[in-house]
Amino acid sequence: MIRLVDGVPAESLPLADRSIQFGDGVFRTLYIRDGGIPFWQRHMAKLAHDAAALGIVAPSPEAWLADLRVHATASATIKLVLTRGESPRGYAVPADCTPHRITQIASPAPTIDRRAGITVRVCETRASWQPRLAGIKHLNRLENVLARSEWSDSVVFDGLLLDRDGDVVEGTMSNVLLLERGALLTPRLDGGGVAGVMRDVAFEAATAVGWQAGEARISLQRLRRAERVWLCNSLIGLVPVARLGDHSWPVDQSPVDSLFAERISACAAQETVWLV
Amino acid sequence: MIRLVDGVPAESLPLADRSIQFGDGVFRTLYIRDGGIPFWQRHMAKLAHDAAALGIVAPSPEAWLADLRVHATASATIKLVLTRGESPRGYAVPADCTPHRITQIASPAPTIDRRAGITVRVCETRASWQPRLAGIKHLNRLENVLARSEWSDSVVFDGLLLDRDGDVVEGTMSNVLLLERGALLTPRLDGGGVAGVMRDVAFEAATAVGWQAGEARISLQRLRRAERVWLCNSLIGLVPVARLGDHSWPVDQSPVDSLFAERISACAAQETVWLV
Repeated sequence: MIRLVDGVPAESLPLADRSIQFGDGVFRTLYIRDGGIPFWQRHMAKLAHDAAALGIVAPSPEAWLADLRVHATASATIKLVLTRGESPRGYAVPADCTPHRITQIASPAPTIDRRAGITVRVCETRASWQPRLAGIKHLNRLENVLARSEWSDSVVFDGLLLDRDGDVVEGTMSNVLLLERGALLTPRLDGGGVAGVMRDVAFEAATAVGWQAGEARISLQRLRRAERVWLCNSLIGLVPVARLGDHSWPVDQSPVDSLFAERISACAAQETVWLV
Repeated sequence: MIRLVDGVPAESLPLADRSIQFGDGVFRTLYIRDGGIPFWQRHMAKLAHDAAALGIVAPSPEAWLADLRVHATASATIKLVLTRGESPRGYAVPADCTPHRITQIASPAPTIDRRAGITVRVCETRASWQPRLAGIKHLNRLENVLARSEWSDSVVFDGLLLDRDGDVVEGTMSNVLLLERGALLTPRLDGGGVAGVMRDVAFEAATAVGWQAGEARISLQRLRRAERVWLCNSLIGLVPVARLGDHSWPVDQSPVDSLFAERISACAAQETVWLV
């Protein structure tokens, strides 16, 4: 594991940093394979968008890329954290608060057998309602920690969080997609949840293969009735859900499923930035 | 400012700490005056309670007290942070996660003129709904940061956060108390907010002076109609609100107000732990 703070190898962060005090920052998780980073520009746009939503100015993509060009191996899992910077005690943000850029480079994440599909559970922990933070990949992730601590069975790949009304929001580390009568649907994230890069990519791919695509309120019942359900994030891509509790879906690919998956792969290849 | 990690002077925390990654921890803010810490036992009980709610085992109160006995001055503001400890990327908590104890000792907080009362505003930022975290003083404090960034006018002491339904939850750094027909009321904190030590103390003092005391849903309209409104936290104690927007309250003390304030002071004196 290689860790950099503001481009310099480091193992620690000042105690005054507001990420420690308040979880005051944003992050991204992505990967490098064979020296390429799929969807790099999207990740940088999302990071800048999320930071701006909190009033933090993101560093230029070139700064992060320079970190990776100097220190990363050809295949790695990358976590980029942007904190608001240091301040004394108290919520007020001082005018001279300078963000810290944390780059973490680790070994590649284990691959999963996507043909078998994954098993998913429903968490007791609900997704919080907070429109100001909805969609943002920020550092206030206690609810994900609590939800993830509900199971230790390694067969369960992820757990779904429902909102106060019982509608599906997301997985603890993934977005949810479903196919319903020729339309790719995903939960509307106006009250909570993280709007990931793969969620956007899947939407575009759906449109390209002739599906409708849209956001909706998705009850558990509606999810169970869907023809297909997938989880997605930047590390796993798009993976079919085979089981949710006692409900199961076939994971064989129809021709249009294959087209959809191929479209996403093509998009990843097209939108790869190369380290060298 | 003196900072200690696990009892040892330090200026930084390992980057793998889960407070940086996820805001995974809890904290307390309190003060030392003339070598005494009011409500020390309550703070320690609350810290242990909050930690347990997240599945974190709090260190013994003696460990924190030893930090303060060795390093603190006779008058200081203290911030105690307990993180879940270090782990690799990912929400799952490893079995060997060892909490870190952070002790921060700073100069005394500025005093405020409590006889004049304070000015309060209503924030646009809403309090989140998350029953699993309601009442807990945890490190996921982005909504407080966003709410606090809504004003820079130093006349405004604090801002009130309303929940999704428009009911008052708390101030960004305080609890709200009001007097309504001989009853001390405070917002119910089942969906969000931090249940502070002073909130409990005020409740007990209210009962002692013959008031009813209870939790309730408090709309803004109901708050405005109250005979008295106070904000409280462990640094300021209990302070009367003089103004909220265009609404104002008299801040003269009736005999029973004085009794209430005296009761709280007596309780603070009685429940003080001395450093030497």
